[in-house]
Amino acid sequence: MPGGTDMTLRSFLWRAENVFPEREIVSRTHEGIHRYTYAEYGERVRKLASVLDERGYGEGDRIATFAWNNHWHHEAYFGVPCQGAQLHMINILLPDSHIQHLVSDAEDKVVVVDPVMLDKLEGAYDEEAFESVEQFVVMGDTVPETSLEPVTDYESFIADGDPDYEFPDVDEEQPAGMCYTSGTTGKPKGVEYTHKMYWAHTMSIMTGELGITNTDVEMPVVPMFHVSGWGRPFATVAAGAKTVLPGPNPEPADIAALCENEGVTKSAAVPTVWRGLLQYARENDVDLSELEYVLSGGSSTPKGLMRDYRAELDVEIVAGYGMTETTPVTHVAELKPGMEDLDEESRVDVRAHAGLISPGLEMKIVDDEGEELPWDGEALGELLMRGPWVTTEYFNAPEKTEARVTEDGWLRTGDIARIDEDGYVDIVDRVDDLVKSGGEWISSVEVENRIMGHEDVAEAAVVPVEHPTWDERPVAFVVAMEDVEDLEGLEEALRQRVAEEYPKWWTPDVIEFIDEIPKGSTGKFSKKDLAEQYVDDEIRGEVEEAAPGDR
Amino acid sequence: MPGGTDMTLRSFLWRAENVFPEREIVSRTHEGIHRYTYAEYGERVRKLASVLDERGYGEGDRIATFAWNNHWHHEAYFGVPCQGAQLHMINILLPDSHIQHLVSDAEDKVVVVDPVMLDKLEGAYDEEAFESVEQFVVMGDTVPETSLEPVTDYESFIADGDPDYEFPDVDEEQPAGMCYTSGTTGKPKGVEYTHKMYWAHTMSIMTGELGITNTDVEMPVVPMFHVSGWGRPFATVAAGAKTVLPGPNPEPADIAALCENEGVTKSAAVPTVWRGLLQYARENDVDLSELEYVLSGGSSTPKGLMRDYRAELDVEIVAGYGMTETTPVTHVAELKPGMEDLDEESRVDVRAHAGLISPGLEMKIVDDEGEELPWDGEALGELLMRGPWVTTEYFNAPEKTEARVTEDGWLRTGDIARIDEDGYVDIVDRVDDLVKSGGEWISSVEVENRIMGHEDVAEAAVVPVEHPTWDERPVAFVVAMEDVEDLEGLEEALRQRVAEEYPKWWTPDVIEFIDEIPKGSTGKFSKKDLAEQYVDDEIRGEVEEAAPGDR
Repeated sequence: MPGGTDMTLRSFLWRAENVFPEREIVSRTHEGIHRYTYAEYGERVRKLASVLDERGYGEGDRIATFAWNNHWHHEAYFGVPCQGAQLHMINILLPDSHIQHLVSDAEDKVVVVDPVMLDKLEGAYDEEAFESVEQFVVMGDTVPETSLEPVTDYESFIADGDPDYEFPDVDEEQPAGMCYTSGTTGKPKGVEYTHKMYWAHTMSIMTGELGITNTDVEMPVVPMFHVSGWGRPFATVAAGAKTVLPGPNPEPADIAALCENEGVTKSAAVPTVWRGLLQYARENDVDLSELEYVLSGGSSTPKGLMRDYRAELDVEIVAGYGMTETTPVTHVAELKPGMEDLDEESRVDVRAHAGLISPGLEMKIVDDEGEELPWDGEALGELLMRGPWVTTEYFNAPEKTEARVTEDGWLRTGDIARIDEDGYVDIVDRVDDLVKSGGEWISSVEVENRIMGHEDVAEAAVVPVEHPTWDERPVAFVVAMEDVEDLEGLEEALRQRVAEEYPKWWTPDVIEFIDEIPKGSTGKFSKKDLAEQYVDDEIRGEVEEAAPGDR
Repeated sequence: MPGGTDMTLRSFLWRAENVFPEREIVSRTHEGIHRYTYAEYGERVRKLASVLDERGYGEGDRIATFAWNNHWHHEAYFGVPCQGAQLHMINILLPDSHIQHLVSDAEDKVVVVDPVMLDKLEGAYDEEAFESVEQFVVMGDTVPETSLEPVTDYESFIADGDPDYEFPDVDEEQPAGMCYTSGTTGKPKGVEYTHKMYWAHTMSIMTGELGITNTDVEMPVVPMFHVSGWGRPFATVAAGAKTVLPGPNPEPADIAALCENEGVTKSAAVPTVWRGLLQYARENDVDLSELEYVLSGGSSTPKGLMRDYRAELDVEIVAGYGMTETTPVTHVAELKPGMEDLDEESRVDVRAHAGLISPGLEMKIVDDEGEELPWDGEALGELLMRGPWVTTEYFNAPEKTEARVTEDGWLRTGDIARIDEDGYVDIVDRVDDLVKSGGEWISSVEVENRIMGHEDVAEAAVVPVEHPTWDERPVAFVVAMEDVEDLEGLEEALRQRVAEEYPKWWTPDVIEFIDEIPKGSTGKFSKKDLAEQYVDDEIRGEVEEAAPGDR
């Protein structure tokens, strides 16, 4: 075959060790700032890999991490997959029952744990669920008092490893990593990342306007247990950029200090982090002048925050999009040619999109019947994607694979999107949260956001209720502010408020006032519980009677 | 398998058509400037592909081009491989016998020919060699008088094609393209590029300091028949950049006009092109202000030229390296962190290296025994590379594959290189041109360049001559300037000149003055002919007697 050698993570590590041996990895740990070079890093990665090898681990063996972003975690990022085993990054913020599900589903052999997360792991420990675990390894050079066993500390674990260990030739189709979906419905599902998927994703986030290059100082604030830290730890090494790891539960003061002291040029995190940093920068003397841009994803980024960053910090927030199933980044809100001179407001409008699809991928939006919809900035459809870093199979879940992956490799994202003429994608809702009315779709998220924009509303959730003619109609459950007395007046005001912004048939036929919206473990509204608790025959009857006559 | 869908060229074309439909391709043809958008381009690419499909072409069928850089050629770049057939880009500058070898070796089914190259192709035509060819297609909308048959014009050929044609799913390991090595020794050998190799190479040249992005206006002056135009036509489409194609035999005036009129930001070509453009810019009023950098490769770029570009045009020339077997780009002379503020001379020193290896590849230099050598800026060894866009098999030449590709996928480049502590590679010679003396290597190219640096020397070539003790010793054949009378004095001066710069044992023991160095078809020195003509027993005797005593 003429087609070259396999796409594995090895070449990226090799390049950093040899071409950028003096570039640094700076790690904020429970003990303070730790600093070393890629040359030293490489030796320790090889020591870790050789120990795993000696212990007989390899293809099909999952080595789990339970940690914040630090250099030990980073060593596992390359050491585990380059040796041939598979890195399973457990989300440390999950409830105990989910952690148990993950460990038993993945059959983790080793769990490498951040000492600051030891209590949490002990709490989640369950003998049956953790049956596969042969070794706990605590990051650092001491083993704290713990009920977990057998246990050792990381430094002892790798002490006798070989710093010159040569990695085996690993097949590019072999899984290198694994993360679980957050599982808003049902149990979390495993997604595996092959070496080739990581390789392709790594190349991708080194391209384009926002690509990571060797002159960058990159700090992934996004946790390394969130879809491989959005793949940035891999790309930073591949590019030869300096890596900054913000450690346990980083507060705005920590992030600001690292940016200032280490000269961070690019960073990535969820919007909440950027809001916190702005607040901190307003109240303290912080030098963020080296920062070129911050990538914001995971949930939609408010335009007001983007505007404030430009105006107050001269830093650009750029939105992006992706999911556990897509390694994750598929879209970044790059500017297109000719947009350099847009006025501030238009520029923010562009930067707030989920973005343009990355080179190497394909996408489309489709309606209920799977028919492709136009890119006109209006049509709403489910977003489908395919490409080298879009998964085509869930772990241990053939029924989910069948439901979400088409025969020709398209992944049904479950996200409802519109695409404008320029190719910018906006994510408006989850498929499951849509109200399907008369063959058309109503975005429950947009309607509830509109309702929550009213000053007298504390919380609101919109759910579909079945209807004999229209299939489904939206019903809004609203928690009014405590001092509101005229609920009838508020109801009418909310109807008008929705109708002003959206087609009239988007207006909920029934608006019910309740005391509280039921919430799930992560604090998000649980529409499932809401529907079970409140949608009864009385509501269904009201919906049927109130059906919109003017559709 | 979780590993995503195949890496094919389809996604790059799709993205340009849909995300950048209004970006332009500007093509200088025999008829003048032609201009259209990626949307129009995509429709024509699909028409071409559908016609190939209808005619029964597909996997294993090679469609050849014989053309300069124009939009018809560019349509074949995507239309042929996305349909499933294979694009064979014939080097139009080869001698007739080589062209015959290429067409018969590749068994080309269709040859798409530039009208300005029709005479040349007719001259090379040979009934037996061209037996596989079922159709000649002349770019444009008319068929000139020609002896080739059956023949049609390109516009008629695609006229009934389907602009909405959907490309089939092509396997990423399927060959998409093919070029032949220039074959300085023996017949040219075919190198095939799979979809995956092109995909990886495309991503690669979109990364880093010099990566092509959507705001670029990119003009590949390097011919599209030279290793796929160094892969730039693919990356320009993938990035959504504007494409400028300089057409038949572009003169400096043409290149300057396209840069100025189209706002070219990045370009790539051999050093000769850049020398010509500089000369033109000195004598004419040219605006090259949009030009950010030009990539220079194919042969080594003089530092003087680089300095002049910086000083006179404010344009940076950056050297790169690659070969037919590597798709081709493997190295680019990027700056490393901290080099932004280098003084002019040091900066040019960096930019003149073959460069840093690209992320995703691995390399090493090895001695005669295959032992790896250090990166110390001194050790000379053969450069070996491997990675996803480094070929692991020659076409139709198993003996060559065996000689050049190791079992673990390393390609022996045949180039002798040194690597400095920073990872910058310098190519000093071809293995075949080395003089192996007493277990050490002498670079014939460096010695002859040193000799040619003397003002009384017109030409010089250094060849190895066998020696009973030292294996080989260098002999220099020198053509003196016409007015030189004291040849003995010159001989002594040349010896001193070499000894000043290199170890004493690099000095040629015998320096022979001759009238002319024999040259091959491309105008390069033919050392094979030189040795056959001039190295006789007398020379061998002289070499034996003169063996250096001080080694």
